[in-house]
Amino acid sequence: MSFPWPEPGTPLADVITPMPVIDEDRLAANIARAQAYMLAHGKAFRPHIKTHKILSVARAQMDAGAVGINCQKLTEAEVFAEGGFQDILITYNLLGAARLTRLRALNDRVARLSVVADSAVTVAGYAAAFAGSKPLSVLVECDTGGGRVGVQTPAAAVALAETIAAAPGLIFAGLLTYPAPGGAARVEAFLAETMALLAAKGIDCPVRSNGGSPDLWQAHLVPSATEHRAGTYVYNDRSMLRAGECGPEDLAMHVLATVVSRPTDTRAVLDAGSKALTSDLLGFTDYGEIAGLPGARITGLSEEHAVVDLSACTADLPQVGDQVRVIPNHTCVVSNLFDRMVFHRGGVVTRVEDVAARGTVW
Amino acid sequence: MSFPWPEPGTPLADVITPMPVIDEDRLAANIARAQAYMLAHGKAFRPHIKTHKILSVARAQMDAGAVGINCQKLTEAEVFAEGGFQDILITYNLLGAARLTRLRALNDRVARLSVVADSAVTVAGYAAAFAGSKPLSVLVECDTGGGRVGVQTPAAAVALAETIAAAPGLIFAGLLTYPAPGGAARVEAFLAETMALLAAKGIDCPVRSNGGSPDLWQAHLVPSATEHRAGTYVYNDRSMLRAGECGPEDLAMHVLATVVSRPTDTRAVLDAGSKALTSDLLGFTDYGEIAGLPGARITGLSEEHAVVDLSACTADLPQVGDQVRVIPNHTCVVSNLFDRMVFHRGGVVTRVEDVAARGTVW
Repeated sequence: MSFPWPEPGTPLADVITPMPVIDEDRLAANIARAQAYMLAHGKAFRPHIKTHKILSVARAQMDAGAVGINCQKLTEAEVFAEGGFQDILITYNLLGAARLTRLRALNDRVARLSVVADSAVTVAGYAAAFAGSKPLSVLVECDTGGGRVGVQTPAAAVALAETIAAAPGLIFAGLLTYPAPGGAARVEAFLAETMALLAAKGIDCPVRSNGGSPDLWQAHLVPSATEHRAGTYVYNDRSMLRAGECGPEDLAMHVLATVVSRPTDTRAVLDAGSKALTSDLLGFTDYGEIAGLPGARITGLSEEHAVVDLSACTADLPQVGDQVRVIPNHTCVVSNLFDRMVFHRGGVVTRVEDVAARGTVW
Repeated sequence: MSFPWPEPGTPLADVITPMPVIDEDRLAANIARAQAYMLAHGKAFRPHIKTHKILSVARAQMDAGAVGINCQKLTEAEVFAEGGFQDILITYNLLGAARLTRLRALNDRVARLSVVADSAVTVAGYAAAFAGSKPLSVLVECDTGGGRVGVQTPAAAVALAETIAAAPGLIFAGLLTYPAPGGAARVEAFLAETMALLAAKGIDCPVRSNGGSPDLWQAHLVPSATEHRAGTYVYNDRSMLRAGECGPEDLAMHVLATVVSRPTDTRAVLDAGSKALTSDLLGFTDYGEIAGLPGARITGLSEEHAVVDLSACTADLPQVGDQVRVIPNHTCVVSNLFDRMVFHRGGVVTRVEDVAARGTVW
């Protein structure tokens, strides 16, 4: 395997940095634990592949018992359809003739494809594109406090469900939400009220899909939900650790980096910048945590450099050439920066996987 | 050309979003203006290709009179060497046997290759790798207030220059700095003092390389510098506009996006998230400016969504399906997210270019 990709058996100490590395055992444990929890609570589990974008990881999630996968964009779903996945939910308002033509082709190819809508404009696009073809399953996306997309009220959800149900090429498949963290009560209230309104009109609502890794272990607090979607849980990250949703031993992704400069007694510079870690802060004031260097703070990133303030570091200070492991603030965005990624077990490389759906924003 | 890449002649209104689009005329004007300024002030100009990562754009910069190109990492330089570029400066401490073996191969292939060092460890690596081969030109990187890498004092610069000059496989080529914006006086003082110390020891210092788009138009305030390096000037962005380094008519990159949701009267959601715009704030409190929508604020990004607060927007509010143009906070990081990029003249697609060096972090 050519530079910078290591052969299996290579110690991580010999891996070219910057490089995200995935711990096989932690990955497998994260997959198994989430699936067991969902099984125990009678929820279908639908992993969001945005976190890893890797076919073999999604296969492991399916093998563990996932009902299907969740993608965010059409082109992301196409990659996984090409990889053989037959139950795909695209949680996005898909607009425009060119995209909808591709969506129709995808629907013909995949056994169970579903999408979402939160407006009559989106539904009209689906209806026009799918008239006379294999019907498209559409869920109504509901804003239960997340403050992103979604209809604002149960009444609006019902109105849109009726529009979908009335369109010849469309099937109203249910409700979906991506809530604010800690929003279980609001999700349950919104779903229950909408289901009652739909039932009163005789409209079937088979799927109620809730989501989010931050709320993964609270999924049972939404009894009206039939399934849960989550992405980040598969690797976990610094934001999940802060939220108490995982422990340090559940962190499956680190970004290996090397100290390339020690300009002053209190400053180190790493070779992992915003092209390796991204600038996602997610509420933090620094750009990742360095394992084993308590008190060290990544105070700034440029594209290829991380500036580390060592003034409060209580460990032995790293020297030029030393390798360090960074716990990224947000794993999903790191995955989108690398064409391939290194997996390891106990610090020894096991495989290198293509990040097949990297860069799929359409 | 397959989806999502438009054929030449396609109006931008028909381009699939999100998509960065480059204005050919503004690009050409930005290249010409910077080169003319450097020529007028007797400075060699060395564009940093990190901003565009596109071979044809770098060729246009060379055709305009650039002395060579600047890359930040070895693998980035390899892409441009493969593209035929013969004068490449890599402004990075390159460490590790595997990387240095590749660096030696690159040095054999390129007419004029130079690198930097700011520590004895980096120099020792170069010296070991280049003993007995075509000599490697090494500049000493100086921290003149930028607070990233670089030796801290003129005396330290001289000491490292002597180490380089004493190594059989290395040539001390000069001094380099990436200053803090507005740091011309400190750069000049550092360079002048170091040059005097070197001259007193009889050490030749042919190149003094200053850098940064924020200081591009102040390059003449550093008389001791022989060359200037800059990247962002080629496209410009919101941060350059804020700094007064360009005008709105000099913005060569926009990111086309589509309104995919209007959940409330004051909220719009775009299909360009952190996978299209990145989370780089560069001191802003929002994630880009929407051209033609004064008062609209991109208050949040998730990977595939931008949440826009329209409550202070004084223009007609955009509706679901409308295309908008986002001025990104930082163009360089946008380039790293797309495998290809669309160029246009007057809103009509002229070409699609490979972002050949995307993802090169090694």
